[in-house]
Amino acid sequence: MHIGTTIDRVALARRAARLMTTRPAPDPADVISLGSGHGFPEVFPDLTEMAQKALIDCRAETLQYGPALGLPEMREWIAGYMKENSLDVSAENVLVVNGAKQGLDLICRLLLDDGDAVVVSSPTYFTCLPIFRSFGAEFIEVSQDAEGLVVSELHETLERRKRADQSIPKLIYDVPDYHNPSGVTMSSKRREALVELADANGIYVVEDSPYRRVRFEGDEQPMVKIFDRGDTVFVLGTFSKLVAPGLRIGWVVTSKPMVARLVQLKSDAGSCPLTQRIILEFCKAGRLAAHTKRVQATYREHRDTMVAALRHQLPEASFAIPRGGYYLWLTLPSSIDADKLAERALQEKVGIISGSKFFAGAGPNGAGSPKHNIRLCYSHANPAEIEEGVQRLARAVRAMNP
Amino acid sequence: MHIGTTIDRVALARRAARLMTTRPAPDPADVISLGSGHGFPEVFPDLTEMAQKALIDCRAETLQYGPALGLPEMREWIAGYMKENSLDVSAENVLVVNGAKQGLDLICRLLLDDGDAVVVSSPTYFTCLPIFRSFGAEFIEVSQDAEGLVVSELHETLERRKRADQSIPKLIYDVPDYHNPSGVTMSSKRREALVELADANGIYVVEDSPYRRVRFEGDEQPMVKIFDRGDTVFVLGTFSKLVAPGLRIGWVVTSKPMVARLVQLKSDAGSCPLTQRIILEFCKAGRLAAHTKRVQATYREHRDTMVAALRHQLPEASFAIPRGGYYLWLTLPSSIDADKLAERALQEKVGIISGSKFFAGAGPNGAGSPKHNIRLCYSHANPAEIEEGVQRLARAVRAMNP
Repeated sequence: MHIGTTIDRVALARRAARLMTTRPAPDPADVISLGSGHGFPEVFPDLTEMAQKALIDCRAETLQYGPALGLPEMREWIAGYMKENSLDVSAENVLVVNGAKQGLDLICRLLLDDGDAVVVSSPTYFTCLPIFRSFGAEFIEVSQDAEGLVVSELHETLERRKRADQSIPKLIYDVPDYHNPSGVTMSSKRREALVELADANGIYVVEDSPYRRVRFEGDEQPMVKIFDRGDTVFVLGTFSKLVAPGLRIGWVVTSKPMVARLVQLKSDAGSCPLTQRIILEFCKAGRLAAHTKRVQATYREHRDTMVAALRHQLPEASFAIPRGGYYLWLTLPSSIDADKLAERALQEKVGIISGSKFFAGAGPNGAGSPKHNIRLCYSHANPAEIEEGVQRLARAVRAMNP
Repeated sequence: MHIGTTIDRVALARRAARLMTTRPAPDPADVISLGSGHGFPEVFPDLTEMAQKALIDCRAETLQYGPALGLPEMREWIAGYMKENSLDVSAENVLVVNGAKQGLDLICRLLLDDGDAVVVSSPTYFTCLPIFRSFGAEFIEVSQDAEGLVVSELHETLERRKRADQSIPKLIYDVPDYHNPSGVTMSSKRREALVELADANGIYVVEDSPYRRVRFEGDEQPMVKIFDRGDTVFVLGTFSKLVAPGLRIGWVVTSKPMVARLVQLKSDAGSCPLTQRIILEFCKAGRLAAHTKRVQATYREHRDTMVAALRHQLPEASFAIPRGGYYLWLTLPSSIDADKLAERALQEKVGIISGSKFFAGAGPNGAGSPKHNIRLCYSHANPAEIEEGVQRLARAVRAMNP
């Protein structure tokens, strides 16, 4: 009798079904990648000096197990950095994690039970989808417009669910600044309304904020967390999009009791003290401010190149110009199937991601999700490659829509 | 109506109850730590040259997102390292993780459902307990003797559970080499019998192997995985105990389909490519073999110092001399309550961990677990501190048992 085996196979199959990952395969070397949100290698800082300091002066710290919550100095620094957004936080509100995705995963572990509902925008950041799915979450999709998540629609959905005796979602996930993939930044009014609605219904909010400082122009909006009078909003931050993704250091900002709960679930013996120290030395040397300007200038140029190329090569496509971040959300003529376009584009040696990957399900209120969007990323390729890539993309569109 | 809030509070309370973490607080600076399994700072290698190479020659790799499965060269190297144990594995069987604990966590995520039973030795590695608890696991404790886990006892327990219509456990967790905390190494016969029993019952085995190369004397036993003819045994490995814990790089070795499943649950955008590259350069330069000898010689001396000090200062305590690893499991006169001793020892400025932290519950067959053991760790302190620490410990014992 192999009872155990039978049980395991069922469990494995169930989990595998949940996972349906949407992570695209990496592009081959001769393909210009306008798909992935990788950083531009030439804008990565020189960290050799910081690494020497970390491995010589701080070797007892950087080679030993680090504190579970993160290096105290790192938490202090992050709290100060968050205060620049007028948040009233201290080091005790900060948990250092192995990238913001681990932060999201820990929040899910703390809050979600099988079958819980989670609110996401339509479209949403695709990597959050398999994370939520792995916890057995059900999705509530809410539309986005030029001001971000349509909070009034969410309100109506919640009221309808209450009337139908359906459960209230456990959390709302959003990227309010330079949204991935739509590029939209949420207005201040919407941010306030979102927290109010979440508070009134006892729903947590995850404010995923990787692109906030990758700002090209326009005013900063207040962080969603600003409107939080209690424990409602978790902020996710990262050094990936501003310094370098390879360092794998991010953070969660929340209340002290929530930090205490999250760290219990972070069973990894603390995030890497070596990469924390390298970042700390970079930041403490005052290098981050100048580097941020360089990152902004670099990606602004990349964006401008992409916008000009699109207008020239693909005048039939429409898009809003992102004022920061890594991404541009392109709406093609409705006759174009973006899944097929992505395949065709690969034959033309340009990598793009079909918009369909960014929808959790059947769209807000089951109204269906559009099939003719693509996400273009201008961070990874250089300007010449961006121009060439858009040209190749235009060829793929023409081939499908002659 | 704050339905959401109510649900969340209940869920949080339930999870908090599960967690009951056993992680001890760090010792104050004037305390000699014989508690934690930290490495000896003086034996950590000089990695400055490797870091320079990683950050200059390999900057496009080390500062960018890395592959989800780990750097291909790292997986290749680990497979080769595993082959030194006569395992028939290739890079495709290797998943790089942020330390072995993340590997255990991923295996739990894949296999465990709320209420599943997990087999652990009595005593067992205390950090595995909160990880298993966070998945709602129930524990089956099995005795250890000088040959390791008593497989015949596990066999009887399984048969009894079948007769009582109780579920078969999902996995068996053990540290077969230089066990944490007992220091015991499992005999080859027991390893074979364990896999046979697990196979016959469709139970997975986790072979946690951090100390295997921290060997002072005696023959190596074959890995448990050697006896696996299928998918039964997951191996956990790490660079923490041999190179430096601060690098946070470990691995899981399992079948290719299991690697594919685990990586779907590893939602962290890949383990740090920078620290992987630093380790790779260290290993590729052929430095690991000489370093391993240095680690072995260092910790052998630490162990010898501790053994001599205990014989001299605490002749009433009994222990088996560990032939490798970091730990010594001390049995004190049964009149000593080790929880109280740990408190008293802290007054004498020596940190130890009470044996009670290493038991999952009420002991094998509910027979109760002993109260008069402590785990001593000889890795972190230097020989002079070890001598002084044992002297302080002896004072604490005398104070309690005059």
